Amino acid sequence: MSLLVTGTIGIDTVETPFGKAAEVLGGSAVYFSFAASLLSPVRLVGVVGEDFPRSFREMFQQRDIDTAGLELRAGSKTFRWHGKYIGDMNAAETLRTDLNVVSERPPLIPEAFRDSKFVFLANTHPALQRGFIDQLKGPRLVVCDTMNLWISQFREELIETLGRVDGVIFNDGEARLLTGEDNLILAGQRVLNWGPKFVIIKKGEHGAVLVSDPQRLDKGSAGSGSGHPSADADDGLFVMPAYPTTRVVDPTGAGDSFAGGVMGHLASAGQTDLEAIKSAMVRGACLASITIESFSLDSIRTARKADLEKRLAQFRRISSHT
Amino acid sequence: MSLLVTGTIGIDTVETPFGKAAEVLGGSAVYFSFAASLLSPVRLVGVVGEDFPRSFREMFQQRDIDTAGLELRAGSKTFRWHGKYIGDMNAAETLRTDLNVVSERPPLIPEAFRDSKFVFLANTHPALQRGFIDQLKGPRLVVCDTMNLWISQFREELIETLGRVDGVIFNDGEARLLTGEDNLILAGQRVLNWGPKFVIIKKGEHGAVLVSDPQRLDKGSAGSGSGHPSADADDGLFVMPAYPTTRVVDPTGAGDSFAGGVMGHLASAGQTDLEAIKSAMVRGACLASITIESFSLDSIRTARKADLEKRLAQFRRISSHT
Repeated sequence: MSLLVTGTIGIDTVETPFGKAAEVLGGSAVYFSFAASLLSPVRLVGVVGEDFPRSFREMFQQRDIDTAGLELRAGSKTFRWHGKYIGDMNAAETLRTDLNVVSERPPLIPEAFRDSKFVFLANTHPALQRGFIDQLKGPRLVVCDTMNLWISQFREELIETLGRVDGVIFNDGEARLLTGEDNLILAGQRVLNWGPKFVIIKKGEHGAVLVSDPQRLDKGSAGSGSGHPSADADDGLFVMPAYPTTRVVDPTGAGDSFAGGVMGHLASAGQTDLEAIKSAMVRGACLASITIESFSLDSIRTARKADLEKRLAQFRRISSHT
Repeated sequence: MSLLVTGTIGIDTVETPFGKAAEVLGGSAVYFSFAASLLSPVRLVGVVGEDFPRSFREMFQQRDIDTAGLELRAGSKTFRWHGKYIGDMNAAETLRTDLNVVSERPPLIPEAFRDSKFVFLANTHPALQRGFIDQLKGPRLVVCDTMNLWISQFREELIETLGRVDGVIFNDGEARLLTGEDNLILAGQRVLNWGPKFVIIKKGEHGAVLVSDPQRLDKGSAGSGSGHPSADADDGLFVMPAYPTTRVVDPTGAGDSFAGGVMGHLASAGQTDLEAIKSAMVRGACLASITIESFSLDSIRTARKADLEKRLAQFRRISSHT
């Protein structure tokens, strides 16, 4: 089924202990799109300035990414981010952010994209996220991300947005900041009270946790996939490690690649039940691990479906137990 | 098969945001023994002073824990620890440690225990750990723990000990300090170079990682348990999340309970191949989660095999995926 993403398209400069990538294609919607497009066609909505290189635009054509929703705005400049990772590279230090076109009016979802069934709203002002939802015609699954800025300064706006989405994908620090709960299961349960049916909390190198309300999730076919009768899965919890990699070159985009894998799988499968979300998260973890093994988009942009399948088989093997 | 543990038996005072437990039975060998004894009989070796309460000694009789190796030393005082957990309770602040009898000559392994096949050497001076190994007659699997003090101040002694054990179970901070590697897979591989066939790195609430050398591990029966042909498992890696609990009351003893679960399962199964170690780690995670849900030994001491089985079934369910 159709998959739409709205989010940032930017020009990144990233420094890590392994080197520097200057003025490269980046942004949440970009990492999401390259990851998701290994699983499903992607409809991309975002806005860039007239400084956006043609070569960047052409990169999308190497994948099944429809850029009909990519607005090139005359007289504006593209979003830019300059970040640096040090030490264990678990968090980036932002050296500079130029919002540029992102601080202007948001892009519109093209008429041809408004019937999208699976929709991911990457991090932006929660009122803008609702503005995107208002343009949709009967979506099946709307999932959003957010960030510290909106949680701390636009909390009520964000909670209003949470009341209009089916799922949330964000990280552990954001979950704790939003809910005041250290324990991530309790944090996830608090978020469910605001409306979402499921919350996926990303923990970086430590994997991810799913907290969901099985009463409100779609019901999968009994016993499908896992070999467990679905009646067993009534608590809606799922915990998973990250795909272990020894080559962490640049963590930029890991979280957005994860989200791309999750949504790409759900859109491809056309399913939104608990087992489908679990399977989707595992694919997200594999795609995130591909992203971080090279600078910026280098590895996720050139990865093939077979690379994902191989990593998926290995992940199953090294995380299965009796 | 027979399971022996050497380690600390102490009198703990613990403070957490949920309250305080004063002058209670504690120590690495104690948590290990209560956890392991749900899976296998345990032979306990340790030394306490004449202040060690009779009621503590009687607690061991409620389980299959043989205290023939528990020396009550006249004129000495029992090891005491006073710790405090604050905030997210991921690490204890030690308010006071009285080594007492632990700083004197170590206990001896009784003659009747020297034929033990599975042996866990809880954290102590690495030369003392070798002293215990010297007393053993043909053990099948010797595994040790260690801590920051020995890593930073007795590094060469520790490396000598690593050359004489089959496995190591320690935490992420210790693995990084010992090897200088941030990446835990690389850290584990470094440890393998010093002698052990496997290294289990505990990550607290984030689970655990196994790094092993499949060429040197026992070979399991092909395809047993996991449904994967054993030829697939040639990288020797395993990653797992922690059992997710929303009731973290007192983390004291979680790591020792985990180790007890690992060794208890291996001794019970009489197996030391990769699949057996994976299964053992999952049991360790379940037992650690039981320990932390009450103060000190309260929940692990009263847990039954059925409690472990129930938690194991739930852990399989919430961590399985396709």
